Amino acid sequence: MPEQIPNDSVGLVTPQIHHFDQPLTLRSGRVLPSYDLVYETYGELNADKSNAVLICHALSGDHHAAGYHSMEDNKPGWWDSAIGPGKAIDTNRFFVVALNNLGGCSGSSGPISINPDSGKPWGPEFPIVAVRDWVTSQARLADVLGIQQWAAVVGGSLGGMQVLRWSIQYPERLRHAVVIASAPKLSAQNIAFNEVARQAIAKDPEFHDGNYLEHNTLPKTGLMQARMLGHLTYLSDDAMKQKFGRELKEGKLNYSFAPEFQVESYLHYQGEKFSTRFDANTYMLMTKALDYFDPAADYDNDLVQCLSHARCEFLVLSFTTDWRFSPERSQEIVDALIHADKNVSYACIESDNGHDAFLLPIPRYLDIFSAYMQRVAADIPTGGGA
Amino acid sequence: MPEQIPNDSVGLVTPQIHHFDQPLTLRSGRVLPSYDLVYETYGELNADKSNAVLICHALSGDHHAAGYHSMEDNKPGWWDSAIGPGKAIDTNRFFVVALNNLGGCSGSSGPISINPDSGKPWGPEFPIVAVRDWVTSQARLADVLGIQQWAAVVGGSLGGMQVLRWSIQYPERLRHAVVIASAPKLSAQNIAFNEVARQAIAKDPEFHDGNYLEHNTLPKTGLMQARMLGHLTYLSDDAMKQKFGRELKEGKLNYSFAPEFQVESYLHYQGEKFSTRFDANTYMLMTKALDYFDPAADYDNDLVQCLSHARCEFLVLSFTTDWRFSPERSQEIVDALIHADKNVSYACIESDNGHDAFLLPIPRYLDIFSAYMQRVAADIPTGGGA
Repeated sequence: MPEQIPNDSVGLVTPQIHHFDQPLTLRSGRVLPSYDLVYETYGELNADKSNAVLICHALSGDHHAAGYHSMEDNKPGWWDSAIGPGKAIDTNRFFVVALNNLGGCSGSSGPISINPDSGKPWGPEFPIVAVRDWVTSQARLADVLGIQQWAAVVGGSLGGMQVLRWSIQYPERLRHAVVIASAPKLSAQNIAFNEVARQAIAKDPEFHDGNYLEHNTLPKTGLMQARMLGHLTYLSDDAMKQKFGRELKEGKLNYSFAPEFQVESYLHYQGEKFSTRFDANTYMLMTKALDYFDPAADYDNDLVQCLSHARCEFLVLSFTTDWRFSPERSQEIVDALIHADKNVSYACIESDNGHDAFLLPIPRYLDIFSAYMQRVAADIPTGGGA
Repeated sequence: MPEQIPNDSVGLVTPQIHHFDQPLTLRSGRVLPSYDLVYETYGELNADKSNAVLICHALSGDHHAAGYHSMEDNKPGWWDSAIGPGKAIDTNRFFVVALNNLGGCSGSSGPISINPDSGKPWGPEFPIVAVRDWVTSQARLADVLGIQQWAAVVGGSLGGMQVLRWSIQYPERLRHAVVIASAPKLSAQNIAFNEVARQAIAKDPEFHDGNYLEHNTLPKTGLMQARMLGHLTYLSDDAMKQKFGRELKEGKLNYSFAPEFQVESYLHYQGEKFSTRFDANTYMLMTKALDYFDPAADYDNDLVQCLSHARCEFLVLSFTTDWRFSPERSQEIVDALIHADKNVSYACIESDNGHDAFLLPIPRYLDIFSAYMQRVAADIPTGGGA
């Protein structure tokens, strides 16, 4: 917990919930008759509502991107290193909106919320959502907040996919897109990793085909295994070598099947922690949204043609040792944007931290990110007013 | 099944079993009072028993490395591409010995064989074996066969680790060592992948702490998941892209959690097939042997000092897209051998096939391997005789 709130923190924040009554027809063809979105905001919306920045979260993220919910919190929101007064996304200049996506488990409608038709938790009946459904729901949240056009939409990993989708789905509604450690679509290898993780969950006997809440249980073992695998692939071989090497928990081999190497204990710890804080059906849904994302598929698999619909400017960032969303995949986005004659800045940041790098306070990363966001701030239209 | 045995096949082969009564003290301190090793041989042992080549198998391999057990077999042994008349390991010149390692599940003593003390299958009570234990048992098999010195000891992956161990444990008993797609020790990342696989098995409710045979069941789900993950990591991102890309099973998305992409179906198929043919306790043991292997640990972590004990010549091979046993790891072996003033040849083979490449008939790979084995054949001492 913070003894006192740091000066560069957005401070204590309170989530808000908006209930949407307008039905949402999803990519799958199914319809959500109504739904809630939970969100947080940091900074002040200016008079003409032109300084708003949307944060799109990744697989296990939520609306709590910065600051603290109480003085008892032992850590701040998940992207506190990038959001706050004087930080890359400077809340002295921007009004920042972070939400929990549909299908999530942190307050927005999803598998653990009540299905109004049945009065019971949705569980596995919650419809599979696609990235475009999230973007549609985010646009409706923008409408509620009176934000006609975002100064920037920003996200890493699965969040970056939402940013890309924003740029072609609502080209007039954002001026800048910041796409970090992302990809234009998953590779077969990435889909395969997701499927192995889903299998771990689905085959946990406590999963009960997703109806674990009705059975008063949780598929903790499966979710733990899924997270161990995910976590492992978000780190780089180098980072794990530096952090753990072949260090032994008890200084010697025990010739048993209990974790003996530090790296095993670490993954067990991470997996166990996650298995009680996150919803398994949400994990299944989020990985499916990742697998499905392929905006170029609607344009004869031509990413250039797809991105030619964008009207915003782009910053694309990648990290040298990220092997699940490698620099090559970011380069594909950049190449397509260049061929589509878009304004794009690109940097590949030296880092040992694999995919996790996008969440870490790496100086060169935050410097480039800050510099770009200063340009975004300079682009904010002045005068007028709503 | 072969309609007729190909000309370059070793033909129909029959496994043999040798029972060892001399107790084997294992690395862990435990003692195997007696044990069986099952093995196959191809080609003819020459009069002075100087043309023998030992094949060491990898994680899921066995003694059936080449040829057919019957005309009903639908495929030959696992390394048939490299072993046979006129092939890299030319059975016109060499007497080839392939065995199933201790702890295996194909006929050598292991978790599914009967513990003579209890009259029941060993199950989880079978002791954890280390690479050095395998090498000791292989040396005893050599004694039985009257082979004082191998012309070469050859293996890929975990098999390559056994070859390295041979070179320092019995330096006078081999003239050549062929180490393919291997490493001087596993990285933290590799240990982590193994632990995720072991967890999948151990947490399968049908595992019963390894006593599944007593419960008349098999932990098929866990073993399937372990294999899906293993298989996925033995392929390269590129190979999976070329083989599957984002191809859909039914040509369209179904928005369901059943496998939708071809790559998912493929992994399910591979996992299911493996889950009925392989023993889960053996899988656990073999991955532990991988984790533990670190011969330099006995020499102040100095691989040069460790390998300075070797007396043989070396061929080291790696494959460009192998990311679980990357070329950099082979290079570490090569660098240490050079610094230890050993005679070593090294090639990194261009291949899209990831770690699996070492089992595949890649022309440049087999050419280099053949050329080296011709040198091994030329080194066979002539005259004398037993």
